[in-house]
Amino acid sequence: MSGHTTNLRLKLPAICFLLQLFTIILFALFVRYDQETSARLWHEELSHHNKSNRDNDFYFRYPSFQDVHTMIFIGFGFLMTFLKRYGFGSVAFNFLIAAFAIQWSTLIQGFFHSFHNGKIHIGIESMINADFCSGAVLISFGAVLGKTSPIQLLLMALFEVTLFGINEFVLLSVIGAKDAGGSMTIHTFGAYFGLMVSRILYRPQLDKSRQREGSVYHSDLFAMIGTIYLWLFWPSFNSAVTAHGDDQQRTVMNTYFSLAASTLATFATSALINGEGKLDMVHIQNAALAGGVVVGTSGEMMLTPFGAMIAGFLAGLVSTLGFKFLTPILDARLKIQDTCGVHNLHGMPGVMGALLGALVAALATQDVYGDGMADVFPLIANGSRTAQYQGVYQFFALLITLGFAVVGGSLVGAILKIRSLGSPPDTQCFEDQIYWEVPEDHQDGYMTAVNSENPERSASV
Amino acid sequence: MSGHTTNLRLKLPAICFLLQLFTIILFALFVRYDQETSARLWHEELSHHNKSNRDNDFYFRYPSFQDVHTMIFIGFGFLMTFLKRYGFGSVAFNFLIAAFAIQWSTLIQGFFHSFHNGKIHIGIESMINADFCSGAVLISFGAVLGKTSPIQLLLMALFEVTLFGINEFVLLSVIGAKDAGGSMTIHTFGAYFGLMVSRILYRPQLDKSRQREGSVYHSDLFAMIGTIYLWLFWPSFNSAVTAHGDDQQRTVMNTYFSLAASTLATFATSALINGEGKLDMVHIQNAALAGGVVVGTSGEMMLTPFGAMIAGFLAGLVSTLGFKFLTPILDARLKIQDTCGVHNLHGMPGVMGALLGALVAALATQDVYGDGMADVFPLIANGSRTAQYQGVYQFFALLITLGFAVVGGSLVGAILKIRSLGSPPDTQCFEDQIYWEVPEDHQDGYMTAVNSENPERSASV
Amino acid sequence: MSGHTTNLRLKLPAICFLLQLFTIILFALFVRYDQETSARLWHEELSHHNKSNRDNDFYFRYPSFQDVHTMIFIGFGFLMTFLKRYGFGSVAFNFLIAAFAIQWSTLIQGFFHSFHNGKIHIGIESMINADFCSGAVLISFGAVLGKTSPIQLLLMALFEVTLFGINEFVLLSVIGAKDAGGSMTIHTFGAYFGLMVSRILYRPQLDKSRQREGSVYHSDLFAMIGTIYLWLFWPSFNSAVTAHGDDQQRTVMNTYFSLAASTLATFATSALINGEGKLDMVHIQNAALAGGVVVGTSGEMMLTPFGAMIAGFLAGLVSTLGFKFLTPILDARLKIQDTCGVHNLHGMPGVMGALLGALVAALATQDVYGDGMADVFPLIANGSRTAQYQGVYQFFALLITLGFAVVGGSLVGAILKIRSLGSPPDTQCFEDQIYWEVPEDHQDGYMTAVNSENPERSASV
Repeated sequence: MSGHTTNLRLKLPAICFLLQLFTIILFALFVRYDQETSARLWHEELSHHNKSNRDNDFYFRYPSFQDVHTMIFIGFGFLMTFLKRYGFGSVAFNFLIAAFAIQWSTLIQGFFHSFHNGKIHIGIESMINADFCSGAVLISFGAVLGKTSPIQLLLMALFEVTLFGINEFVLLSVIGAKDAGGSMTIHTFGAYFGLMVSRILYRPQLDKSRQREGSVYHSDLFAMIGTIYLWLFWPSFNSAVTAHGDDQQRTVMNTYFSLAASTLATFATSALINGEGKLDMVHIQNAALAGGVVVGTSGEMMLTPFGAMIAGFLAGLVSTLGFKFLTPILDARLKIQDTCGVHNLHGMPGVMGALLGALVAALATQDVYGDGMADVFPLIANGSRTAQYQGVYQFFALLITLGFAVVGGSLVGAILKIRSLGSPPDTQCFEDQIYWEVPEDHQDGYMTAVNSENPERSASV
Repeated sequence: MSGHTTNLRLKLPAICFLLQLFTIILFALFVRYDQETSARLWHEELSHHNKSNRDNDFYFRYPSFQDVHTMIFIGFGFLMTFLKRYGFGSVAFNFLIAAFAIQWSTLIQGFFHSFHNGKIHIGIESMINADFCSGAVLISFGAVLGKTSPIQLLLMALFEVTLFGINEFVLLSVIGAKDAGGSMTIHTFGAYFGLMVSRILYRPQLDKSRQREGSVYHSDLFAMIGTIYLWLFWPSFNSAVTAHGDDQQRTVMNTYFSLAASTLATFATSALINGEGKLDMVHIQNAALAGGVVVGTSGEMMLTPFGAMIAGFLAGLVSTLGFKFLTPILDARLKIQDTCGVHNLHGMPGVMGALLGALVAALATQDVYGDGMADVFPLIANGSRTAQYQGVYQFFALLITLGFAVVGGSLVGAILKIRSLGSPPDTQCFEDQIYWEVPEDHQDGYMTAVNSENPERSASV
Repeated sequence: MSGHTTNLRLKLPAICFLLQLFTIILFALFVRYDQETSARLWHEELSHHNKSNRDNDFYFRYPSFQDVHTMIFIGFGFLMTFLKRYGFGSVAFNFLIAAFAIQWSTLIQGFFHSFHNGKIHIGIESMINADFCSGAVLISFGAVLGKTSPIQLLLMALFEVTLFGINEFVLLSVIGAKDAGGSMTIHTFGAYFGLMVSRILYRPQLDKSRQREGSVYHSDLFAMIGTIYLWLFWPSFNSAVTAHGDDQQRTVMNTYFSLAASTLATFATSALINGEGKLDMVHIQNAALAGGVVVGTSGEMMLTPFGAMIAGFLAGLVSTLGFKFLTPILDARLKIQDTCGVHNLHGMPGVMGALLGALVAALATQDVYGDGMADVFPLIANGSRTAQYQGVYQFFALLITLGFAVVGGSLVGAILKIRSLGSPPDTQCFEDQIYWEVPEDHQDGYMTAVNSENPERSASV
C-alpha cells in the first residue's frame, strides 16, 4: 500500500460530518425529553402524583451512570494505551467511536425500547444504556486495535450498534432473558463480533509490525489507570439498570466480591504459568477484570457472596490461562489476531457468565427470593414460566448472541475490507505516526536512536 | 533577570502564610455552618418540619460536587501537563491556587449571597460555587501557564476571585440573568481575564523558550487524563447548581449530547485543516470540550437534544479552527501569548454559549416549560419580564462580563508586573527546574544528552 | 541471598489459592446478605414498614463508598508509583493486597460487629468498612514498599486485618470512642504497625539499592494522580460511615477546608526549608494530604470551618517538616526505613488528629450540638458520660491503638522475617525486575545505557 491511503484529510472529516449530520436530523425528527427530563411533563407529573423533585429518578441513577461513563472513556481508553507506540490512537479513537456510538445507540435502542407515538423519549436510563452499547463496540475495538483506521472504526460502530440493538431487543424483550450487566449482550456479543471482524481482516504479514506490539514501562502504568477504573466501577456497571432497592445493592456486592477473587486468581495463575515465576502485567491488566464480566448476568440474582467469589476465581483463572495458551493458538491456527486479548477478558468470561446466569436462574425459588422475585424474574413471579424454563431461555439467549456476533462480525468485517478506508499497511500497524502529528520524541528516527542498543548509531540519524 | 529573582525561599512561604492566616481570621469572624450542616440547626429543622435525615440536601448535591471537584483538580491540573518540561508546575500550581481560591471564594461569594445577621452560612452548595469560582481562575492560569511564578498566581487568584464574585453578583442577583453552568461567569470571564493578564505581561523574547513549549509523547497522554475527566463530568458541572428534578436531568442530558457532537466536529476539523490529514492532539485535548462550555448557559433550558448537538458541533468546529488560525494571530498581532489556547476552548465557546442562552431564553414559552418555568426563568414565570426581555438581559450579562474581564484582567496584569514576584526570565519559561527540585532525568544536562540528535555530545556534559 | 529465593513460581500461587479458598469456605459458612441486600428480607421490610425501594441505604452510602474505593485502589496505588523502578509493584501489589484485605476484613469485622445467630450479615456499610481496613494495610505497605515480596505482603495483610479488627472493636464498641474517619483506627494504627514491621525487617545494607529509591520525572506525575485523588475524596472517606444528615455534610465540609489549608502550609514549608527555595514533589505528594488525616476523628464534630483550617494548616506544616528532618533520623538512629514517609503523612497527623478529637469531644456542649448530640456522642446524649470523660476515653483510645500497632507490628515483622518468603536481597530493593516481566526499556542493561551519564558505555552492554 502506498502512504497516501492512510491520509485522513478528506475521508475522516467526510464521515464524521455525515454521521453527525444524519444523527442530528434523526434526533430532530424523533428524539424528545422523557417525562422526568421535560420541564412541562415532569411538573405535570409532580402535581398529578404528589411527588417531589427529589423523587426524580436522576438521583437514583446518575451516580451509577457517571461510574459507567468513566469506565467507557477512561477505563477502556487507558486500558488500551499499553502499546508503546499507539497511546494516542488507543485513548483518542476510543473517545471518538464512543462519542459517536452513544448518540447512535440512543436512536437504535430508542426505536426498540421507547418508541411511542412516533417519538423516542429519553432520560437518564437511556444514557446508561447508550454507554453500555458503546462498551460492546469498544470491546470489539480491542480485538482490532492498531490495525484499523478511524474511518473503519466509525463504520464498525455504525453497524455494530445497530446489531447490538437488535440482539438486545430479542434477548430482553422477545425471549425475556435477564442480562443487566451484559455478560451476553455486551461482553459475549462485543468480543465475538470483534474477533470475527479481526478474522476477516486477517493480516498474514502482521509480523512486520510485531516490534511495536509490546509495551514500554510507562505505557503499562497508563494501562493500569484503565484497569483499576474498570475494576473499581464494575459494581456500578452491573447494577446501573437493575431494579431499585435490594437488586442494586446485591448486584454491587456480588460484583465486588467476584472481582476481588478474580484478582487473587490472576496473580496466582500469572506467577504459576511463567517459567521464571515472574508476574506478567498483561494478565494483571486484563484477567483481574474477568470477575466483573462473569457475574454480568447473575449479579442481580441471589448468587450469594461466596458464589460470586467462586465465579470470579474461576473467571480469573480461565482468563489468565487464555492469555498464555489460547491467544497464540487463535492467531496461529484460526487466523484471529486479537490485539488486546478480548477473547480472554470478554469472550470466555462472558460465555461463562451467561451459563452461570442460566444455572442460577434455573435454581431460583420463591423461598429465597420472596416478593423480590418480581424484580429479578418477573416472568417467574407472574407464573408465565418456571425457574427451569427461565434457565433454558437464558441458555438460548447465549446461543442467539453468539449467532448475531459471529454472523454480524463476519459481514461487517467484509464491509471494512473495502479499500480506501485508510487502513494501515502491515508494516505500520500499532503506530500512531500514520494518523497523528507526534512529538519529536516519538518520531521514528528519534526512537530508533534512543532505543537502539548501540546509541552511537543515532549520531548519523 | 538574575537567577535569584525566581528564588521562592521567603516570598512563597510569606504569601502562603499571610493569605492562609488572613483567611482563617475572616472565617473565624464570619463563617458558620448553615442549617443543614450544623448539628443543632439541622435537628431543629428535623423536628419542626417533620423531615428525615435523608432529606438533607447533601444527598442531592454531593455526587455532583465530587464530579466538579475532580474536574477542578484532576481535569484542569492534568490537562495542562501537556508541556514536556512543566508537568510539576501544571498539576501542582493548579493544586495550590485552587486550594486557595476555594477558601477565598467561600468568603467573597458568601458576602454577596449568604450574608445574614453578620454571618456567612455555608453548606454543600457554597462548596460547589467555590469550586466553580476556582475554575475561572484556573482558566486564566491556562493563558499564563509557564510564564508566571506561584506568587503571581496566588495574587492573581486573590484579585480574580474577588472580581468574579462581583461580576457573578451583578449577573445573577442584580439583572437576573441565568448562567448555571457558567458560560459567562466562569468561561468568558476566566478566559478574557487571563488573556488580558497575558497581554499585559507580554514577553517579546518568549521565543527563547519556544523549544520547551511543546509536548512529549507521554506528556500528551497525561494531558488526556485531564481532557477525558473534564469531558466526562461536564454534565455534572453544568447541572450542579440547577434546580432539583427535571432541571438537573435535562442539563445533564443536553451537555452529554453537546459534548458528543463537539467531539466528532473536533476530529473532523482537525484532520481537515492539517496539510497531511493527520490529527493533532492539541485539538483533541481541548476543542472536544467546547461542547461543554457552549451549553453552560442554555443547558438547563428546553434546548432539546438535537439543539444541544448543533451547538456542540459548532463549538467544536470553531474551537479547532481557533487553535489553527487564531492563536498565531493573537500572538503575532495582538501580543497575547495564550499557552493553553484558552481563547479557543473557553473564550469563543463561552461567548457563543452566552449568545445561545440569550436566544433560547428569548424563545421560552409557557407551552414548552409548563409549571417548570418557575425553576428555569422565575422572573418570566412571575410576570416580571417577558421571555424577550430575559433574552435581552442575558445579552447584557455577556457585555458586563466582558467588561469586568477586560478591565479587571488589565488591572491585575499591571499588579503582577511588579518586579520581585519571582517571575521566570524569558529564557526559562515552561521550565520546572527553576521552581522545583527535579529528578535527574529532567535536569538540563541530562535531557540535552538524551534528547540530543547527537548523543555523543552528552559525554562531555 | 541467592537469586532463586525471590522466585514466586510456587509460593505465590500457593498462598493466593490457599487464602482465597479459605476465605470462600468461611464466606460459605458464615456470610449472608443483610436485610437491605437480600431479595426476600428487603421485600419483607418494604411491606412491613411501608418503605419504598428508594429508602434502601444503598442510595445514601454508595456514592461515598465509590469515592473511598477509588482512594484505596487508585489513590494509594498511584501515590506509591513515584519510585522510578517500582511502578508495577506499587500499583499492582497495592491491588493484590487490597483485593485480599477487603475480603478478609469483611469476615473479621463481621465477626466483631454483625455476627448474629451464627451468621455475618453484610451490606453497603460493611463494604465501606472493609475498604477502610484495607487502607490501614496499605499505609503499612507504604513503610515497607520495595523491600518486601508479595508473599510477605499477603501475610502482613492477613495478620494486620485481624489486629485492626480487634483494635477497632475495642475502641468503638468497648470504650465508646468516636473515630469515623479513622485518625486512630486507620492512620495511627496503620502507620505505627508498618513502621514496626519495617524496624524488625531493618536492612543495614539498603544503601546498595539507594540509587533506585528516587523518582523520574514522569513517575512523579503518576504519583500525583494518587495524591490528587486521595485529596479529592478524603471528604468522602471521613464522612462515609458517619450518621446521615448534618453529620455527613459537616464532616465533608470540615475535611474540605482542612485539606485546603494543609495544601498552602505544605507549599509554604516546602519552599522555606529547602536551601534554594525550590519546592519538593515529595512534600506536595504527601504532606498536602495531612489535612485529611488530622480531622479523621473530629471531622464529624462541631469543629467549625476555621477550626478545621487551623488543624489542617498545622498538620501540613508538621508533616512537611517531618519529611525533611525526621525521616533521616528515623532511618539513621532508630533503624526505621520508611519508604513513603508514612510516619509524616499518617503517623504524626494521625496522633494529632486523635488528640484534636479528644479535645473537641471534651468541649462538646448541649448548646452547640442540640438534638444532634445523639448522633455524634450517643453516650453523652444519653447521660452515660460527660463530655470531659468522652475526651479522656478518646485519649485512651489513642494509647490503646499505639499499643496494638507497636506490639502487633513487632510480632508480624518477626513472622515476616522467616526466610523463603521471597524477600528481595538488599541489592535489589525498589526494583520491579525481580518479580515482574518488564518491557525492554526497563531492563537493567537498557536503563544503564540510556541513563548513563556517558552513553558511550552502553555500546558495550
